[in-house]
Amino acid sequence: MSVERIYLDHASGGILLPSVQKEMLRFLVETQASPGGGHREGREAREELERSRQRVATFLDAKDTEGVVFLSGGTEAIQSAIRGWGEATVKETIYLSEMEHPAVEVAARRLEKSGFGVVRVPVDSDGRLKWEEVKAGNGKGLVCIHLAHHDLGTVQNIAEAKKFADKAGAKLFVDATHGAGWVSFSIEESGADLVAVSGHRLGGPKGSGALWIRSGTAWAPWLEGGRQEGDRRAGMENLPAIVGFGVAAEEWSKSGEHFRRDIAKSQQALAEGIGRKMPIAKLHGPKLGAERSPAHLAFSFAGLEAESLALVLDRVGLAVRGGSGCVTREMRIPPAMKAIRAKPEEGRALILFTFGLGTPNAKMEEAAERILEGVKKLTAVLPA
Amino acid sequence: MSVERIYLDHASGGILLPSVQKEMLRFLVETQASPGGGHREGREAREELERSRQRVATFLDAKDTEGVVFLSGGTEAIQSAIRGWGEATVKETIYLSEMEHPAVEVAARRLEKSGFGVVRVPVDSDGRLKWEEVKAGNGKGLVCIHLAHHDLGTVQNIAEAKKFADKAGAKLFVDATHGAGWVSFSIEESGADLVAVSGHRLGGPKGSGALWIRSGTAWAPWLEGGRQEGDRRAGMENLPAIVGFGVAAEEWSKSGEHFRRDIAKSQQALAEGIGRKMPIAKLHGPKLGAERSPAHLAFSFAGLEAESLALVLDRVGLAVRGGSGCVTREMRIPPAMKAIRAKPEEGRALILFTFGLGTPNAKMEEAAERILEGVKKLTAVLPA
Repeated sequence: MSVERIYLDHASGGILLPSVQKEMLRFLVETQASPGGGHREGREAREELERSRQRVATFLDAKDTEGVVFLSGGTEAIQSAIRGWGEATVKETIYLSEMEHPAVEVAARRLEKSGFGVVRVPVDSDGRLKWEEVKAGNGKGLVCIHLAHHDLGTVQNIAEAKKFADKAGAKLFVDATHGAGWVSFSIEESGADLVAVSGHRLGGPKGSGALWIRSGTAWAPWLEGGRQEGDRRAGMENLPAIVGFGVAAEEWSKSGEHFRRDIAKSQQALAEGIGRKMPIAKLHGPKLGAERSPAHLAFSFAGLEAESLALVLDRVGLAVRGGSGCVTREMRIPPAMKAIRAKPEEGRALILFTFGLGTPNAKMEEAAERILEGVKKLTAVLPA
Repeated sequence: MSVERIYLDHASGGILLPSVQKEMLRFLVETQASPGGGHREGREAREELERSRQRVATFLDAKDTEGVVFLSGGTEAIQSAIRGWGEATVKETIYLSEMEHPAVEVAARRLEKSGFGVVRVPVDSDGRLKWEEVKAGNGKGLVCIHLAHHDLGTVQNIAEAKKFADKAGAKLFVDATHGAGWVSFSIEESGADLVAVSGHRLGGPKGSGALWIRSGTAWAPWLEGGRQEGDRRAGMENLPAIVGFGVAAEEWSKSGEHFRRDIAKSQQALAEGIGRKMPIAKLHGPKLGAERSPAHLAFSFAGLEAESLALVLDRVGLAVRGGSGCVTREMRIPPAMKAIRAKPEEGRALILFTFGLGTPNAKMEEAAERILEGVKKLTAVLPA
């Protein structure tokens, strides 16, 4: 009677990599000593902590391992990056698009309230930032850019952002919480000053994340009250999560290419299936390829309200996200859909399909079939 | 050749309760859907989240379950409480001792810098706050008190703090990150407005903690950028940690009395052993009983520098903390030892023994013997 579920909401929580599972299992039974302890248990914990730091630095291609600060996740990493920068600077200018993750947006608005300037970077119809349309030259500042967009899947051109930042005399913050791993990125190549990553989007544990800070960057700690992480993030180190994150990072360093190729197959199969079965479906963000995260598809089904369709899809065994992945119940149109000037009826009809390690490639035809079934069901009950 | 280790630094990381282990094991293999997802997996996650909230509220004896906000641990809970209150109020007065946890201290100093008043509450020689020596009446404010002191083990009289807060027209923040569980505490009885708890000190996972906020309390979110936790704490919910914390809380609600009695046996056995074998050892903080956390002993070994002794003890198989549990390498004398006016040579000689679920009671005589051995070894190499 009941169908096997197909879960395509990995951006908001997937499954752990088997090696992460295995490593974390240790912590369920062992004493969880703190790296701050001067005793043998503490020293062993410190070694694990520093090994994880090295693994994350390698994954990010950062020569400066010490730049890695572990914290509780992507949102904290973003807040810590922007507000920590704001704390250490005086009313400079923040450059960002109108479609950043709410964590970026809210931090920028906070700084704006306290006197910082905010310059908005326009985007094209696929969500690519258009630096050529922004005037630099307001002096110092912070350029905020995401590596891949959480709703549109757009891969941004970090090199262009860096060029702009240099011209403006600004630092560069890369929000890689969406995109890291799935999209090729190197701290060394990018010249970024601040980089935020999330562990769980890499098959690592929830509650893990890191902020990488280039040595010498004006920045002040955001969570204070303890000496952990070189005085940069207070609070007992969540070593099980950190170690799990480290293992995931190492897996990506070794097998990232394979992961990306594998996931792109799911992405392509689902996109083709949807395109073939449903002419009303419209892909938003760049077409499949290097300019789009392989872990991500965003389709609108014109005329069908996203949340209703997501609910119907849930009933036919398909777990997806209706509307923006990272905004809200109330907001009917995701800011990104406004920013790319999608039609309102498309904006209201956005469904996100996000893939992760463990997504069953072979199920994508079936997933497309279920979407068709859902679309038909919902259309049938709509007023003519 | 090698002796079996005895680990007595549970305040900085112990072992998970077996039931917590079991519950968290699920999350190593299952899809970690987010409670924000509208699909079945998301709804199931939300049910787990809300069940955990209920369990933590019950543990804290809070009628208002919705007051519980999950976050990444004790330090974040403290920062979020004090700075969130500061954000929502205007230059009121903070009342606190000179020996609060650094997370409390640093938050208070931040607010002081931005114009808030700070009034220090003196303590007696066992670390009990002396409210009768403080003038209330500066108008509104926030009274900050810890449930049990992290270095001295002193159990504070919350009712007196509440009486003072009422007189001063101030809100009451209870830092229960040390003490919750080990010391009897009820939100309903205490009348507290803000309460911080840490999961890992209860046999729950690291990376778990909660802030309880009385409905109507002036408070603004500390970590922004997402709608989670009723707009009070942004960031993907760390559901595995939250669920583990919830299970630990439930264990404490059921078996807290047993846990406390059990741990008090370890405490008493070790205190007696130390007292019997080492006349130079001096207990700091209240004597064993209702006024002292049963999970905690603080002895100075006069003439022996704490960190050196801790290192020697580590070599003889005993993991303890030398100096304050929550300050630093550099600070030779923990603030609490200054606050209670301990002699400087005692202040420099403080060793913390902290117990947890899983501490082997039967090993305490052996632990005391190892301390004696360490004390003798260190004394032997000291200049006469």
